[in-house]
Amino acid sequence: MSTTNPSPAASGPTPSGSTPSGPAETYVIGVDYGTLSGRAVVVRVSDGAELGEGVLDYPHAVMDVTLASSGAALPPDWALQVPSDYVDVLKSAVPAAIAAAGIDPKQVVGIGTDFTACTMVPTLADGTPLNEVPGYEDRPHAYVKLWKHHAAQPQAERINTLAAERAESWLPRYGGLISSEWEFAKGLQLLEEDPELYGVMEHWVEAADWIVWQLTGRYVRNACTAGYKGILQDGVYPSRDFLKALNPDFEDFAETKVEHEIGQLGASAGRLSAEAAAWTGLTEGIAVAVGNVDAHVTAPAARAVQPGQMVAIMGTSTCHVMNSAELVEVPGMCGVVEGGIVEGLYGYEAGQSGVGDIFAWFVRTQVAPRYHDEAKAAGLSVHQYLTNLAADAPVGAHGLIALDWHSGNRSVLVDHELSGLVLGTTLTTRTEEIYRALLESTAFGTRKIVETFAAAGVPVTEFIAAGGLIKNPFLMQVYSDVLRMPISTIASEQGPALGSAIHAAVAAGAYESVREAGDAMGKLNRNSFVPNEQAAAGYDRLYAEYSTLHDYFGRGANDVMHRLAALRREGFAERTGTDGSAGRGTTEPLDSLEQHALENTK
Amino acid sequence: MSTTNPSPAASGPTPSGSTPSGPAETYVIGVDYGTLSGRAVVVRVSDGAELGEGVLDYPHAVMDVTLASSGAALPPDWALQVPSDYVDVLKSAVPAAIAAAGIDPKQVVGIGTDFTACTMVPTLADGTPLNEVPGYEDRPHAYVKLWKHHAAQPQAERINTLAAERAESWLPRYGGLISSEWEFAKGLQLLEEDPELYGVMEHWVEAADWIVWQLTGRYVRNACTAGYKGILQDGVYPSRDFLKALNPDFEDFAETKVEHEIGQLGASAGRLSAEAAAWTGLTEGIAVAVGNVDAHVTAPAARAVQPGQMVAIMGTSTCHVMNSAELVEVPGMCGVVEGGIVEGLYGYEAGQSGVGDIFAWFVRTQVAPRYHDEAKAAGLSVHQYLTNLAADAPVGAHGLIALDWHSGNRSVLVDHELSGLVLGTTLTTRTEEIYRALLESTAFGTRKIVETFAAAGVPVTEFIAAGGLIKNPFLMQVYSDVLRMPISTIASEQGPALGSAIHAAVAAGAYESVREAGDAMGKLNRNSFVPNEQAAAGYDRLYAEYSTLHDYFGRGANDVMHRLAALRREGFAERTGTDGSAGRGTTEPLDSLEQHALENTK
Repeated sequence: MSTTNPSPAASGPTPSGSTPSGPAETYVIGVDYGTLSGRAVVVRVSDGAELGEGVLDYPHAVMDVTLASSGAALPPDWALQVPSDYVDVLKSAVPAAIAAAGIDPKQVVGIGTDFTACTMVPTLADGTPLNEVPGYEDRPHAYVKLWKHHAAQPQAERINTLAAERAESWLPRYGGLISSEWEFAKGLQLLEEDPELYGVMEHWVEAADWIVWQLTGRYVRNACTAGYKGILQDGVYPSRDFLKALNPDFEDFAETKVEHEIGQLGASAGRLSAEAAAWTGLTEGIAVAVGNVDAHVTAPAARAVQPGQMVAIMGTSTCHVMNSAELVEVPGMCGVVEGGIVEGLYGYEAGQSGVGDIFAWFVRTQVAPRYHDEAKAAGLSVHQYLTNLAADAPVGAHGLIALDWHSGNRSVLVDHELSGLVLGTTLTTRTEEIYRALLESTAFGTRKIVETFAAAGVPVTEFIAAGGLIKNPFLMQVYSDVLRMPISTIASEQGPALGSAIHAAVAAGAYESVREAGDAMGKLNRNSFVPNEQAAAGYDRLYAEYSTLHDYFGRGANDVMHRLAALRREGFAERTGTDGSAGRGTTEPLDSLEQHALENTK
Repeated sequence: MSTTNPSPAASGPTPSGSTPSGPAETYVIGVDYGTLSGRAVVVRVSDGAELGEGVLDYPHAVMDVTLASSGAALPPDWALQVPSDYVDVLKSAVPAAIAAAGIDPKQVVGIGTDFTACTMVPTLADGTPLNEVPGYEDRPHAYVKLWKHHAAQPQAERINTLAAERAESWLPRYGGLISSEWEFAKGLQLLEEDPELYGVMEHWVEAADWIVWQLTGRYVRNACTAGYKGILQDGVYPSRDFLKALNPDFEDFAETKVEHEIGQLGASAGRLSAEAAAWTGLTEGIAVAVGNVDAHVTAPAARAVQPGQMVAIMGTSTCHVMNSAELVEVPGMCGVVEGGIVEGLYGYEAGQSGVGDIFAWFVRTQVAPRYHDEAKAAGLSVHQYLTNLAADAPVGAHGLIALDWHSGNRSVLVDHELSGLVLGTTLTTRTEEIYRALLESTAFGTRKIVETFAAAGVPVTEFIAAGGLIKNPFLMQVYSDVLRMPISTIASEQGPALGSAIHAAVAAGAYESVREAGDAMGKLNRNSFVPNEQAAAGYDRLYAEYSTLHDYFGRGANDVMHRLAALRREGFAERTGTDGSAGRGTTEPLDSLEQHALENTK
């Protein structure tokens, strides 16, 4: 990143961007809240040039084995975060980005943010997170439930069964299934496992909106997550009747904990407060964009807001977003929301809950020492080294098929009790072959989504990849071969942050619309990868196997993965002497063996 | 091992055994030829005391990726050995054992051997292995096809299909399926892939008999492998008609390449030759027992030759042997042979083609560096360290199920194109949990065999474990819990070698029968492990899942493993520019990437 300061007084072309700076060059800041870190980027309003960035790894990362405050064990499928980590990003990464860009912070006219979703913060009326309320710091349910907190699956299943029975009108908008990742399932879990805390909670807030609240002092609920994650369709939430049938104490959940003023994407949620100006070094009163989701905000950053352009934001997980002029029901999609990505179109979302996470887990737990040593000697990451070893083999030569469900399946099965599988191993199977099979499995998962959209009447006409995984050209080629489509790639390393900056520019009034801002500030490399016919033919054969296993294990023929998930929970209960939920966090601290487990999963 | 020399002149109790030595104490030597090494043990005839051992790792180990002589790549599922390695064991391990025992070699009255099976040597009329014939050293088919050479699966399938069509009377004696590991499938593969070499071959010899031929100068075919592996039933081999229908050039295979004088178990095959006496340091003319199989020879060493006593010899693979007074057909057993273990009873054999091999493969390829480091710091093997980490968790808490088919399935499916599977992995699954799931999968495989025997009318009334894996008490407890049976364990660390020594003692005339010798020289710890009801109940649930997957993938509902095996072969063919067989060994040497693979699989 450049550290040059293109000051307003400078003349001639600046070294850091291709567009000559006008006399009143302005900047916006986009802040992308990911799973493990927050990243701020300074972006030039005129052309989208990214001039400097700052990153903070969340001090508490993801708590999925123990609660940091007490050391108490968390049950399987839990994933919590600490809200103050998000504020620390504002205090640290934003000033760092400004310093790296070398700009005068007074030239920053707006700030926009995007967040993982659905990531939920339980708060008091003033936005104080419950984990910061004295007496609740050791209650697991007082913390942020991260998107990949999958322990509300039983609640999600009850929601789905009941909604199907009652033929709730909103259900088809979510492909027929509400995810355990979303607001209602997680909220119901909180109620049922820690009712006292549920009573204390005054708002159940998307982290995307909570951080905007911290910036502005105002709580505005963004239309994107309200629609995709909060079951707000055609202006209404699920009815009191429905919620009461789930649990009598849940009857007023929507109106008392969830419902709030809605802000449209690209609008201003308010002005930067004095306190937040002090944290960030920015000017009090500048525009703060309405909150948004990392995936959705990336579409304009990739100039991909036309119907049929699917953007896959590929990182720890993958989120797929696409606009269409049509409103149809896509089985197993995450949702369709009018104006959910840009105004005037229906925004569709689908996803894969584990992608880069699966590769990282494999490298962390199942790669032999010699690969680590050899990668180090070659000056490569273990990921790159394994990729190089595996890349040249003919398609299928490893004889392996994997299912990419280690973090459950978000689309098109919407089932977070599904789990991973590797099949075909022999005594001569090599580590890098399993790694490749895992890469391939995620491409097959994407093909399943693309085919489901096409079958539902909203075909994908262009596939655009964004996110950290686009740095692996072999992986991108596999996706192109498996999908039999060219892959275009975003020409920014910080797509979500750029997208947030685009929304900030609109909120600040520099552009009329997100679409217009995206045209000026977004960046795309078209057809970076094109399919190879021979490889594609090989992958067709593997995909046929994937599909058979996908349906066998995912559509009820053999529910072994559900039964194994139940055994995991029972095992946890037996080990910790609990009922298998975290309840009020009264489980014993881990013993040394369990500490070992903790260290191994971080 | 003791190095004391209990000389005939010594008086009083000897320090190395509990039985007082008579004035004419005699000894026998048992030599156990395993997959990777040969081991000689000196055993006292009077009581079976094991007084000294010597081991030689085969210099060429197993060739399963490249041929050592030329560096040419071998196709998937090949596994070759070099016959001179076996002779080296006689020259090295036998003198070492005598030295370790501290005995006078003149007191050794006999030598017995046992071998992996079915392991086949192609020879000239005088027993010269074809790989030692000038001009053939680079021909893969000139080498020993080790038991786990599984590349003759297509031939095995043709044999099975044809035999079933023709209702060949011998087929039910092998559970309805002839294995690709055995004499006829491997011989047919040799004919079809290298017909010139097939023409040169004058005997197709079990390695068990080849080594006895080297010791005595006489070729005697042992009744055990002739029956179990050579399809000799009721005195006849498969007919010329049958063989001709397989391949016209195979018509005279049985009579010209296989048929030979049969020797009974425990009988003397001949006398130690002068040349072999020079190799071993033993006395020319002492008794040499008829060859035998490692598993079968272990039954008397464990005093387990009564009907219903199943002996599982658990090492890289597991072989199960059991006697019965009844002749029944057990689906998927390896075979039943009259007198195949001891005279007067029907000897049944079943097996699992990968057990310890699977654990070793996993540790070699898929265990992260920190485990290696921590094991080293704790002074433990990685196997023991992983076992310790995994052992305390409640049954099923890992949420995993594995299929133990990484080296195919010998019983009860008899299909070496099946492959391994691990299902249920999540992003918090730990390495040691997968390791435990693999341990458990082999116990489930054993339960499948035990249940199949019972269902066929030959119930297993006692389960006796032998082999290297009995050193892992957690594994033994898992077997006891999974089988819901006590596990008795052989009280010898060298069961097969002790068994061979027992046969040597009978061949030398020291005992009337193998049974009598086993009573005097065999050793057993009864009920070393007993089932835990709670664990057994948990394993019942996991076993139900295993059984469903076993049948789904193993009995034709989804032949994905066969199709993946075909893809592996195609990939090999594409990579090496061949038809996927080793043919005459004309493939190119491996490139550096493939060398890497070689190193990783050794």
